[in-house]
Amino acid sequence: MIVVMQKGASRGEIVAVEERLRDLGFQTHPIYGVERTVIGAIGDKRDSHFEVILNLPGVERIVPILRPYKLVAREVKPETTAVRAGRVTIGGAEVVVIAGPCAVENELQLITAAKAVKEAGAHILRGGAFKPRTSPYSFQGLEEEGLKLLARAREATGLPVVTEVVDTRDVELVARYADILQVGARNMQNFRLLREVGQAKKPVLLKRGLAATVEEWLMAAEYIAAAGNHEIILCERGIRTFETSLRNTLDVSAIPLVKELSHLPVIVDPSHATGNYRLVTPLARAAVAAGADGLMVEVHPDPARALCDGPQSLTPARFAALMEEIGRVAVAVGRVAREADGKVKKQAGG
Amino acid sequence: MIVVMQKGASRGEIVAVEERLRDLGFQTHPIYGVERTVIGAIGDKRDSHFEVILNLPGVERIVPILRPYKLVAREVKPETTAVRAGRVTIGGAEVVVIAGPCAVENELQLITAAKAVKEAGAHILRGGAFKPRTSPYSFQGLEEEGLKLLARAREATGLPVVTEVVDTRDVELVARYADILQVGARNMQNFRLLREVGQAKKPVLLKRGLAATVEEWLMAAEYIAAAGNHEIILCERGIRTFETSLRNTLDVSAIPLVKELSHLPVIVDPSHATGNYRLVTPLARAAVAAGADGLMVEVHPDPARALCDGPQSLTPARFAALMEEIGRVAVAVGRVAREADGKVKKQAGG
Amino acid sequence: MIVVMQKGASRGEIVAVEERLRDLGFQTHPIYGVERTVIGAIGDKRDSHFEVILNLPGVERIVPILRPYKLVAREVKPETTAVRAGRVTIGGAEVVVIAGPCAVENELQLITAAKAVKEAGAHILRGGAFKPRTSPYSFQGLEEEGLKLLARAREATGLPVVTEVVDTRDVELVARYADILQVGARNMQNFRLLREVGQAKKPVLLKRGLAATVEEWLMAAEYIAAAGNHEIILCERGIRTFETSLRNTLDVSAIPLVKELSHLPVIVDPSHATGNYRLVTPLARAAVAAGADGLMVEVHPDPARALCDGPQSLTPARFAALMEEIGRVAVAVGRVAREADGKVKKQAGG
Amino acid sequence: MIVVMQKGASRGEIVAVEERLRDLGFQTHPIYGVERTVIGAIGDKRDSHFEVILNLPGVERIVPILRPYKLVAREVKPETTAVRAGRVTIGGAEVVVIAGPCAVENELQLITAAKAVKEAGAHILRGGAFKPRTSPYSFQGLEEEGLKLLARAREATGLPVVTEVVDTRDVELVARYADILQVGARNMQNFRLLREVGQAKKPVLLKRGLAATVEEWLMAAEYIAAAGNHEIILCERGIRTFETSLRNTLDVSAIPLVKELSHLPVIVDPSHATGNYRLVTPLARAAVAAGADGLMVEVHPDPARALCDGPQSLTPARFAALMEEIGRVAVAVGRVAREADGKVKKQAGG
Repeated sequence: MIVVMQKGASRGEIVAVEERLRDLGFQTHPIYGVERTVIGAIGDKRDSHFEVILNLPGVERIVPILRPYKLVAREVKPETTAVRAGRVTIGGAEVVVIAGPCAVENELQLITAAKAVKEAGAHILRGGAFKPRTSPYSFQGLEEEGLKLLARAREATGLPVVTEVVDTRDVELVARYADILQVGARNMQNFRLLREVGQAKKPVLLKRGLAATVEEWLMAAEYIAAAGNHEIILCERGIRTFETSLRNTLDVSAIPLVKELSHLPVIVDPSHATGNYRLVTPLARAAVAAGADGLMVEVHPDPARALCDGPQSLTPARFAALMEEIGRVAVAVGRVAREADGKVKKQAGG
Repeated sequence: MIVVMQKGASRGEIVAVEERLRDLGFQTHPIYGVERTVIGAIGDKRDSHFEVILNLPGVERIVPILRPYKLVAREVKPETTAVRAGRVTIGGAEVVVIAGPCAVENELQLITAAKAVKEAGAHILRGGAFKPRTSPYSFQGLEEEGLKLLARAREATGLPVVTEVVDTRDVELVARYADILQVGARNMQNFRLLREVGQAKKPVLLKRGLAATVEEWLMAAEYIAAAGNHEIILCERGIRTFETSLRNTLDVSAIPLVKELSHLPVIVDPSHATGNYRLVTPLARAAVAAGADGLMVEVHPDPARALCDGPQSLTPARFAALMEEIGRVAVAVGRVAREADGKVKKQAGG
Repeated sequence: MIVVMQKGASRGEIVAVEERLRDLGFQTHPIYGVERTVIGAIGDKRDSHFEVILNLPGVERIVPILRPYKLVAREVKPETTAVRAGRVTIGGAEVVVIAGPCAVENELQLITAAKAVKEAGAHILRGGAFKPRTSPYSFQGLEEEGLKLLARAREATGLPVVTEVVDTRDVELVARYADILQVGARNMQNFRLLREVGQAKKPVLLKRGLAATVEEWLMAAEYIAAAGNHEIILCERGIRTFETSLRNTLDVSAIPLVKELSHLPVIVDPSHATGNYRLVTPLARAAVAAGADGLMVEVHPDPARALCDGPQSLTPARFAALMEEIGRVAVAVGRVAREADGKVKKQAGG
Repeated sequence: MIVVMQKGASRGEIVAVEERLRDLGFQTHPIYGVERTVIGAIGDKRDSHFEVILNLPGVERIVPILRPYKLVAREVKPETTAVRAGRVTIGGAEVVVIAGPCAVENELQLITAAKAVKEAGAHILRGGAFKPRTSPYSFQGLEEEGLKLLARAREATGLPVVTEVVDTRDVELVARYADILQVGARNMQNFRLLREVGQAKKPVLLKRGLAATVEEWLMAAEYIAAAGNHEIILCERGIRTFETSLRNTLDVSAIPLVKELSHLPVIVDPSHATGNYRLVTPLARAAVAAGADGLMVEVHPDPARALCDGPQSLTPARFAALMEEIGRVAVAVGRVAREADGKVKKQAGG
């Protein structure tokens, strides 16, 4: 790290900072500038408690040089991690599509949705059994009953299932039924939950928090990895900004940025990013064009009667059209896409 | 709620929306405008699933009229709630000050801090035993051992204690030791934790999330109240904005706004709001001037050796000066402040 | 508009609001709800001074129903506006690419850049003669000398040119040399400049402000249209959010959203959106996939010696690769793209 | 500045960066760390074009050490600048209050407002003659006629006047009538206007842009100072954030922060910050408590008939109450406040 001293910091203050840095295990290299002295502190330390340096007299600020994450950094593992769920690989050449209803409502709704998304070419089924809702008066999910229906939908279609876990006490239960455990945006910094899913034996889909920086998102992934689970899929789902004409603002730049910084696969949820079914397909196309490894899309057999997220859910017919469209974009950017009939589509000669 | 139809919506579409609204239990009142039709829907419904209306053909948008929270709204209870912890009342005439270290580190540190803040006039002791940290490699707190030290500090000083709970599994444990349970900013929408503290028999201090709107914050409080616990203290601690020269942006307007919307007491944490000890005192003064019912301030006997939040922690001497300054402001705005000697200070004739 | 009365507003207050609305030319339709009364006010009024209603006793808030812009709304003109500059049409089937250096530095630099971008297939040349810079100590542009060089580059290549105007006093001068007048992000609400370019006889490229909502951006376009100039191209260039790992956050959702709300063509500037040349190409692909009518890309013969925006400028070789890539995406989404040799590329059978 | 090299940057890349830095006039000091090399570059350079270093192979990022502003920095001038307008001093012990209507509407309205605010103890009259409005269909101000009315109000009351200038072409005209020239939030980065008011002989009140960082705000002030005008008053008026329950979010922390970084006086506009007259007084108290040198408050004789900003305007009676309240707070924080009768109020023994 670099310690920037205040203009006019005394010799004694500079020496005291150097001493404290050496106590903390750093080698120090002061540089005496025209207006200010800066001290380079060398050492493989990522422990954040060196921020105490900030309190020493004469210190103006600290500039960290090393990134705070290690296990999830591309620097330490150049090839993209391929996460497997059933026979599906996320992080390979194919653009993987996760689809299904916001919430599991009943058997008919779920099985209808599952069959429809499978038929259109989806790879994985989504559906919430535990729903984090802004209002205590909204539908909170079918809980274990919902998990059982998901397992039944998997049997009926062969699709692996992903579902959200919202409580440390439920991780074991959810992991018994699901192929992938989802940690939602509002729990991205629920560190106990991160640690708990880090000890599970199932891959984790980690959504970005509404106001989480890319660095904080990767630190949340680092929590999971540090607990022993390296099967992590990152999911961008829109961030909160001043713009309120849509539910969130899809941060499409985060896709190539995270792929540069980390070896983890990155997928995009265009449904939550926009909150409006009419914009889901163009955003899905944009995500694939920007390099996303997959998509997560809300599909409901009858959006106008959905118990949650109706306004952003696609009908099966609209979802099938989306699959067509993103298939063409995937091929245009050198990826492989699956067609409705299960055949793969790729660039001629690609 | 008001349903705004698209320009050019057909008569049939309007009728279909009205029918669906009546199915959901609303009375309907269409208004035919020059360019658009809007439909007023009357009924005491706050259930959010009427958003399904958005999916009906011809609907442009929906405008809710009723606020989504009930139990915490000032409309239903005009007088401010007074929350009691030990002999301290939050939400009365006195500006209540909670102070202490970010984390409980050891007995000496905690007892020293506790005695210092008490001597300067603080009403309640803070200290974290379970620490939510951005990095898995940072100090995570002493856990139950920390709770025991807090109990010892209470015995030594008579100050009630507030400490954070970060896991649904720990609520019972923490409630055995603490006088007030804190829910941190990153857990503001950890709905299971909200429900769990809602069943505890201790008051809850609910911090505002980094990117939570005032409405979402009140909805989080509504979760706690709906679970049966009405002893809630709201704590503004800075929000995340584009401005990065400080750790967060203190939303001082939220103080009078929340007091208008809700009957719950509101306090302010100027330490997290700024991340910089030099700005803590001016922000504390501003918070009291804006009408806050109290403050929560980080104080450490030796900030340069603190295991967390050193840069924003006050020394005991700086904290004593803060108490002096906010005392004067409290009196100027018609509140009562406690002096270091335990006497109260108020406006002459006030 | 809808006027929402406070809970408990008196009969007299409701009547007074209705009277005032009728004074302002509205018809009124009160709806008496369970908790609140709302008043529908009908009339083709977009004048914002009806916000005075907010000050009347008993009024809680106002909900506008009509959008505040008229001339630029798709409602009033369903087909997309095609803006012509020289022989280029923006807003047609072809994805139009504007490219060139941030600033005009000298003849060699500009002509080299212009020939390179033309050869790679660009349609229009960009280059700043008047540069709005954050620091008064940074290079501010060659001014009229720069405009002359742009005219020379147009002669040399046949490409129309777009350049920024930053002062009402310069509009006439810039319009003499440029084919398209650019209004920069920082001047998006410089209403006098908007009015002045609204009286010019050249098309206007209007960048979105850093913190402008989509509605404010369309209102800025409305200013230009209201002054008589309907040849407007909207340009999304990234907004300011809490995320600081990149210069701005590209709001890719704004592309399909604006195309739904307005008939004006929308292009994207991925260079300013990211500030990092490595991310320009993936964002350019995303923009085209989302439906953008064109792109504006910074290209410099020697980015490491550029006087401005070097870090986000592409070399000619990287720009040629970008053209290849976006060509494939354009075709995949049903658009026409021009190849380096000037031939058009489209979907088989498209 | 510090140049951080990528992990694995080659010796040759490091040498090339050092050479380029020396070409630009820097001395270089490489520090070879465990994972990365950083290069300290020493020299009194604030010119931003050294960002070209970012394009050299092997460079990861650049960390500036010096602040980009010089003339407005407290480092170069420790005492606060006192700006004089008529007999009023902004930046001294007294908390200065600017008050008046949003827009000058007619003589009666302005003179009534001017007399009312004077009587309540205001020091300076505000009133807009040129109004920047979001909609081209809103009232745009009386222009020169408005300036004449302001001059008449000054004669009638003795109060100096501040009014906004929105076009470079109007600076001379406005400076003939006004005592202080206001640059509005939307023009904070209209660099030509900054340069023009920098050449005027009247003090400038510079509002912070809606999405301007504190550093950008100070750079805008630097533009004015660099053009020769050092009489600058900074005005915080709320920033744009995700929170939309109020018009803007008052950044109260900016007050002590800017006073630490700059020697310029800082005032606060609580009217625009909130957009809601009920919150103006608590925010005014907060601003004074945080250390503001003054306030700017909208007052209208009949807010319900105001042509702009009615909802945030105070009646004369409410303004008189505000003056009372902020007078008490000013004294509590060691400032001097003027009473309605013109006498000054200060702390006993202060």
